[in-house]
Amino acid sequence: MVILGAPMDEMVTHRPGARFGPREIRAATDLGAEGWHMDLGVDPFADLNVVDHGDAAVRPGDARFNHRSIREAVGRVVDSGAVPIVLGGDHSISFPNVAAVAEGVASGSLACIHFDAHTDTATENYEVEWSHGTPFRHLVDEGILAGPRLVQIGLRGWWPNPPEWEWARGAGVRWHRMEKVIEEGIDRVVDSALAEVSDADHLFLSVDIDVLDPAFAPGTGTPEPGGMSTRELLRAVRKIVSRRGLVGMDLVEVSPPYDHSGITSMAAHRTVLEAISALALHRSGREARPENPTG
Amino acid sequence: MVILGAPMDEMVTHRPGARFGPREIRAATDLGAEGWHMDLGVDPFADLNVVDHGDAAVRPGDARFNHRSIREAVGRVVDSGAVPIVLGGDHSISFPNVAAVAEGVASGSLACIHFDAHTDTATENYEVEWSHGTPFRHLVDEGILAGPRLVQIGLRGWWPNPPEWEWARGAGVRWHRMEKVIEEGIDRVVDSALAEVSDADHLFLSVDIDVLDPAFAPGTGTPEPGGMSTRELLRAVRKIVSRRGLVGMDLVEVSPPYDHSGITSMAAHRTVLEAISALALHRSGREARPENPTG
Amino acid sequence: MVILGAPMDEMVTHRPGARFGPREIRAATDLGAEGWHMDLGVDPFADLNVVDHGDAAVRPGDARFNHRSIREAVGRVVDSGAVPIVLGGDHSISFPNVAAVAEGVASGSLACIHFDAHTDTATENYEVEWSHGTPFRHLVDEGILAGPRLVQIGLRGWWPNPPEWEWARGAGVRWHRMEKVIEEGIDRVVDSALAEVSDADHLFLSVDIDVLDPAFAPGTGTPEPGGMSTRELLRAVRKIVSRRGLVGMDLVEVSPPYDHSGITSMAAHRTVLEAISALALHRSGREARPENPTG
Amino acid sequence: MVILGAPMDEMVTHRPGARFGPREIRAATDLGAEGWHMDLGVDPFADLNVVDHGDAAVRPGDARFNHRSIREAVGRVVDSGAVPIVLGGDHSISFPNVAAVAEGVASGSLACIHFDAHTDTATENYEVEWSHGTPFRHLVDEGILAGPRLVQIGLRGWWPNPPEWEWARGAGVRWHRMEKVIEEGIDRVVDSALAEVSDADHLFLSVDIDVLDPAFAPGTGTPEPGGMSTRELLRAVRKIVSRRGLVGMDLVEVSPPYDHSGITSMAAHRTVLEAISALALHRSGREARPENPTG
Amino acid sequence: MVILGAPMDEMVTHRPGARFGPREIRAATDLGAEGWHMDLGVDPFADLNVVDHGDAAVRPGDARFNHRSIREAVGRVVDSGAVPIVLGGDHSISFPNVAAVAEGVASGSLACIHFDAHTDTATENYEVEWSHGTPFRHLVDEGILAGPRLVQIGLRGWWPNPPEWEWARGAGVRWHRMEKVIEEGIDRVVDSALAEVSDADHLFLSVDIDVLDPAFAPGTGTPEPGGMSTRELLRAVRKIVSRRGLVGMDLVEVSPPYDHSGITSMAAHRTVLEAISALALHRSGREARPENPTG
Amino acid sequence: MVILGAPMDEMVTHRPGARFGPREIRAATDLGAEGWHMDLGVDPFADLNVVDHGDAAVRPGDARFNHRSIREAVGRVVDSGAVPIVLGGDHSISFPNVAAVAEGVASGSLACIHFDAHTDTATENYEVEWSHGTPFRHLVDEGILAGPRLVQIGLRGWWPNPPEWEWARGAGVRWHRMEKVIEEGIDRVVDSALAEVSDADHLFLSVDIDVLDPAFAPGTGTPEPGGMSTRELLRAVRKIVSRRGLVGMDLVEVSPPYDHSGITSMAAHRTVLEAISALALHRSGREARPENPTG
Repeated sequence: MVILGAPMDEMVTHRPGARFGPREIRAATDLGAEGWHMDLGVDPFADLNVVDHGDAAVRPGDARFNHRSIREAVGRVVDSGAVPIVLGGDHSISFPNVAAVAEGVASGSLACIHFDAHTDTATENYEVEWSHGTPFRHLVDEGILAGPRLVQIGLRGWWPNPPEWEWARGAGVRWHRMEKVIEEGIDRVVDSALAEVSDADHLFLSVDIDVLDPAFAPGTGTPEPGGMSTRELLRAVRKIVSRRGLVGMDLVEVSPPYDHSGITSMAAHRTVLEAISALALHRSGREARPENPTG
Repeated sequence: MVILGAPMDEMVTHRPGARFGPREIRAATDLGAEGWHMDLGVDPFADLNVVDHGDAAVRPGDARFNHRSIREAVGRVVDSGAVPIVLGGDHSISFPNVAAVAEGVASGSLACIHFDAHTDTATENYEVEWSHGTPFRHLVDEGILAGPRLVQIGLRGWWPNPPEWEWARGAGVRWHRMEKVIEEGIDRVVDSALAEVSDADHLFLSVDIDVLDPAFAPGTGTPEPGGMSTRELLRAVRKIVSRRGLVGMDLVEVSPPYDHSGITSMAAHRTVLEAISALALHRSGREARPENPTG
Repeated sequence: MVILGAPMDEMVTHRPGARFGPREIRAATDLGAEGWHMDLGVDPFADLNVVDHGDAAVRPGDARFNHRSIREAVGRVVDSGAVPIVLGGDHSISFPNVAAVAEGVASGSLACIHFDAHTDTATENYEVEWSHGTPFRHLVDEGILAGPRLVQIGLRGWWPNPPEWEWARGAGVRWHRMEKVIEEGIDRVVDSALAEVSDADHLFLSVDIDVLDPAFAPGTGTPEPGGMSTRELLRAVRKIVSRRGLVGMDLVEVSPPYDHSGITSMAAHRTVLEAISALALHRSGREARPENPTG
Repeated sequence: MVILGAPMDEMVTHRPGARFGPREIRAATDLGAEGWHMDLGVDPFADLNVVDHGDAAVRPGDARFNHRSIREAVGRVVDSGAVPIVLGGDHSISFPNVAAVAEGVASGSLACIHFDAHTDTATENYEVEWSHGTPFRHLVDEGILAGPRLVQIGLRGWWPNPPEWEWARGAGVRWHRMEKVIEEGIDRVVDSALAEVSDADHLFLSVDIDVLDPAFAPGTGTPEPGGMSTRELLRAVRKIVSRRGLVGMDLVEVSPPYDHSGITSMAAHRTVLEAISALALHRSGREARPENPTG
Repeated sequence: MVILGAPMDEMVTHRPGARFGPREIRAATDLGAEGWHMDLGVDPFADLNVVDHGDAAVRPGDARFNHRSIREAVGRVVDSGAVPIVLGGDHSISFPNVAAVAEGVASGSLACIHFDAHTDTATENYEVEWSHGTPFRHLVDEGILAGPRLVQIGLRGWWPNPPEWEWARGAGVRWHRMEKVIEEGIDRVVDSALAEVSDADHLFLSVDIDVLDPAFAPGTGTPEPGGMSTRELLRAVRKIVSRRGLVGMDLVEVSPPYDHSGITSMAAHRTVLEAISALALHRSGREARPENPTG
Repeated sequence: MVILGAPMDEMVTHRPGARFGPREIRAATDLGAEGWHMDLGVDPFADLNVVDHGDAAVRPGDARFNHRSIREAVGRVVDSGAVPIVLGGDHSISFPNVAAVAEGVASGSLACIHFDAHTDTATENYEVEWSHGTPFRHLVDEGILAGPRLVQIGLRGWWPNPPEWEWARGAGVRWHRMEKVIEEGIDRVVDSALAEVSDADHLFLSVDIDVLDPAFAPGTGTPEPGGMSTRELLRAVRKIVSRRGLVGMDLVEVSPPYDHSGITSMAAHRTVLEAISALALHRSGREARPENPTG
């Protein structure tokens, strides 16, 4: 697996700062070079080869260049046979990221499970086409991701507007509003999502940290109260990746200037580490072996 | 509906700062002039005429004047036929606010659902009669609110003392301690509360942001650990107002100097927006139409 | 009961600052000299004699001296017949604290319920034997606490490593990972823990504030996302102490420099107050009398 | 000398929080029970008997009561022959403080040197007569302080208005705007101030921490950019008190919710300690003996 | 005079957030609708007609559009005969701002005094031509501002590189490094600057808040230690505008997410208010009448 | 030159956190791999070979090990012929650092200029011999540094006590209290210091960031109000190193948990960069060539 930073935030519509996300997520740990996941019974660093490739080259103020650079960097990772995990940066990076992964895994169908408070399916935000509110629209509209293979979890609030909802239904996108998570529980929602992507060959995971409630993730650009707890997110990621593996991932919208004591960066760091651990389990082909008193 | 600020905090007993609540609550949004509630299927700004009347005139250090000024300002709103939503300020403003609303809706009976960590039913705090710990005592004792039509949700901690509890039972007040919310779930508690106010003609909603756990609302004056999550509060407000409508509301005790990254102000802002949206649905006479994949 | 501060943090492995925990926990309240617990129906300050003995003498930079000093100070409290409640300070203080309590209650068997994200059962951290990651190992290995009488709740994350887990199983330690709390609910986990310590004569309670999720307790040294909510912790402590009483307690790892608006200190303060209140109930020999509308 | 807290902030016009000033100022030190002033060559705690009498009794929300309580508490200190040093609290406390000191030293004339960004000479603020913007007007108008014996240093900004300036000239008040401090240097301004009060028998010192630039004192209620540095203030206080001694003092307007890392509280703490040290020197009757390499 | 916000920060190279500068600068005051400058003896709001035109329309992520929009908005102000004061936003807005002012005052020559830690004279930053590090290069290179009529004050640190310095000498630009301010004092530096622009008909003032030391202005994007104090800046602005008047101004690079307790916003607010007050004096044609004890 | 981190803070007596100093100082820049010092006319990265060797190996909680490790790491740097610049960490690291440098430059005499609020000349703090308040005592007492070749600048406050002052005079140590800096100006004080070390062959520079006033360096462990401004420190370091070169340096006591917006880390970063730049100039053998308008 390859960790790759995408330190850009030119495409945010509200609070900037996600350009410093990669740096702070990397620092948000007191673990050394090993770690044993007590619920899964794996050491991800022993079982997988995890490499940090640093950041994609970016130019502050030039989103177009940055998107191209990220796409190329992810492409190189995919070409090498590794699984790219991109640390945002704003959510606009999902377009180049998913596009590069889709290209790389051309031999099979790609599905995406997307955790977010927002659908990010506008055609533009404030007339900006490649904004952080649009990547999933363009991915579907450009045929990179089939509508029915996009599943969104955690949606809430007062955005988007009816035209975007109509488009999503028309395109066959599936989603689970936060209200469903509250009513059914995260476990059942994850089961539904897994069923919905069961026919795809490959799974991409996109996590916007604002799927968490602002209490758990204050350090983000467009927080929306009423969201998930960190333990729900970790549990969901664990199950999804344990079951389906992973061909690519991004973790976006961590904005350190709005964080405090690193709690948002830590939640992001652990979400990535959970995915890596679950992938180690998935690849091992065995079941989780939680550490229990009776062995 | 009319938004009215009540920027006073002279009556707090612990951490001040709520005077800046109205300013920060208003700023705690990245929405423009429209917004589509994905769980209800309404655009509150399209369906309702929501106007911001600015702040009631206040004099720092003169609570008596401020209470009079707030009562008059709310009175003018009520007289105009609009529903006042008052942004506190400390909780002492509920006395003038409820009193003015009660006067305005004299033709029918008024009930109040009150979310709070505290009962606010003392006769005085530190010998101050109109403190933020007393409004609901005076509202009942002065006959403005019938005891049995006051329902409190979220109470917890080590206050008040036995005499206040005795008074409340004697007056017929109803309440649901936080322990009940934990044991029964917010949905059942809200159902009980709705049943308890079912015989009243009009509903007033008073939300002290400290009903939330300090993790969700650090920016408040007398936080009490062990409280509700924002999603429970939003869900409760949604159901209550969708069912019963609203003749008045206040959202109090947001103290920006103790907030960080605006998370308390945002929780407050969304609580108000949830009430407005639910009122739009209530007035429409139709059921919620959540945005679902299958239409 | 005697409150005793242990203002040392020399033994932390990551973020320091817990030396200021005692000061901030003491200040994290707006209560005066009385308080009525609405769920239990007790005034802990009326029913128990609670005294604050100040801090144990410490020397910054000399952990060995500090441990000795804490052990002596706790010993004096125990000798006087009082129940010591030690405010940390880093978790290394549990060794001298539990050791002194065990000595004092020599006539009966001692069990410990331990809330934490981490097991703290290493033989050393970075080759430091008396680190905050080791006290429970040494307590069991030195025979102060029988392995089967140590019950840990809330464990999660990527630490410790397999050797520590093997040791724990070998020693008969019992534990409930956070995953269990999520799956079974805190009530059932507490019931299991109570059953596991039912044969012991005395109960010690050790609470590392990092058992809470960083959203609820950002102000700590080694936060681990995905933890308990404050209301789960308060509820657990209430039940445990109401049922079993208490011969000693510590509340550790509150690091004020990483806190904001005192929310971590407040959660710690209320956890201690909850224990004191529950002990008052336990000693009274009667059932909880929650304040309900119908009396 | 007696330290007395005045934890009230009901009379602020802008940012509250000064009620927590006394608590944080007391904590803003790493000194123990001794301390050697290297520029003066005195140990204030050895030479003077410094006692902390705790806080005057206050009721949140009842400024009238608080002023009475502070006046009585200061009166008791003065009657005992001690020098009161009052830690605010908002600046309105200077009225009861100076009034009580003036009563106590009735046998001689009293002068006051007052460091502040603001004159605090309005008749009322927002129609509130005893506001923090009025104490020096009332002290002069009620004849407690003779106009020519009030000397103000550090004034700047856009307040008060011409009527207050006219009044001050009419009353014979003297002042040194911040512009003068910049142009002449603090040493010459202090010399002028000392000359202006040279005919008085007793000296009172009132320091509003907002005389400092917000960089040095962010934690205050009505900060005004362009102010003094801490070293200028410490130097000024040292010289004034060394020369003239002290019969009373207050240090006001420290607002901890707006402070960070305690820098404002520390500046306040050292200003008080500087005054105490300088008083020790003054009483010793000898010159300063700075610690120099050559002895 | 017209206040105009330019809430964009797409062109910053390091820490973003200046998009929220206009909002916070406007809020950074406790003054009402009047104010009397005690050093100048003017009430700027009485003598001048100061109007707030709100913000120029901006699109997050579209700097090109924003620059056009700002230029048009400033152009409209200039056409109306008013003096525009633009609140940034990042420093890239100086290009459209100065360009629009230059167009408006075509009949006379325009000079600019520019306070900044940086020269902002690169041709591009990270290959972005219209970055916040380039406006003064383009203004001179495009002939909008004559090189010799650009005077920079406060420069320090390790940027730009020799080619930019060579260009500046070649273009006849004048500047005063921070070292000069330290060695000669701000008064003499301002006198030199005034002499250097004495032959121009009109004066534009551009203040990058990072000319201040980070202690005085932490809330900015590219802070450079070792800068001016706020009182030096206020004094400089006062003298410059009193002597020469003003045809346009901008105050840029206030980044609220990095500010604390509003100290940077307040320094910015007072700098603008100082300029307005000095302009009022300049237009009155009379000398400053400071408020002194002797009238 | 070699940059070496010393991430330990076991030896602080008050606020910890300096263990994170090296990480944050390294990140406190927006410069890339080049930089042109406009006052000196040098590019330190072009003229010198500056390498970052990472951190010395440390064990949290084991100061003895850490001191040994730092001494060895510095020794290796010195042996290689490079100049070590150690980023603390607490000030106790100056003992191993200076000791290793002294060993390395055995062929000539070593002097040390030491910027600090405190003398750090106690024999022990709280009975801890190798505390951060003792390194310079031990360096002199053990004969590593001759007393007359230690020059301290910026001392202030209420510590140490007379015995330490007596010792210093007896040992021939020289110092310049902050009062002298205020009265004479930093330039003259630096000239005196240079004269006092003029007979030594080699110069070591030790900068405790708390020599700065807390306004400029809030992020430190034992801040002392009334200190230097950053521009005074930068100017002093520039002159000292330009004149005398450097055989070793440390920059200590940056405590990031108490910093905000990185202003303390930035001040520290620039102090180091200033030293490196001045050393580049010193080695070039030419005079400073400041960038001036006239070339």
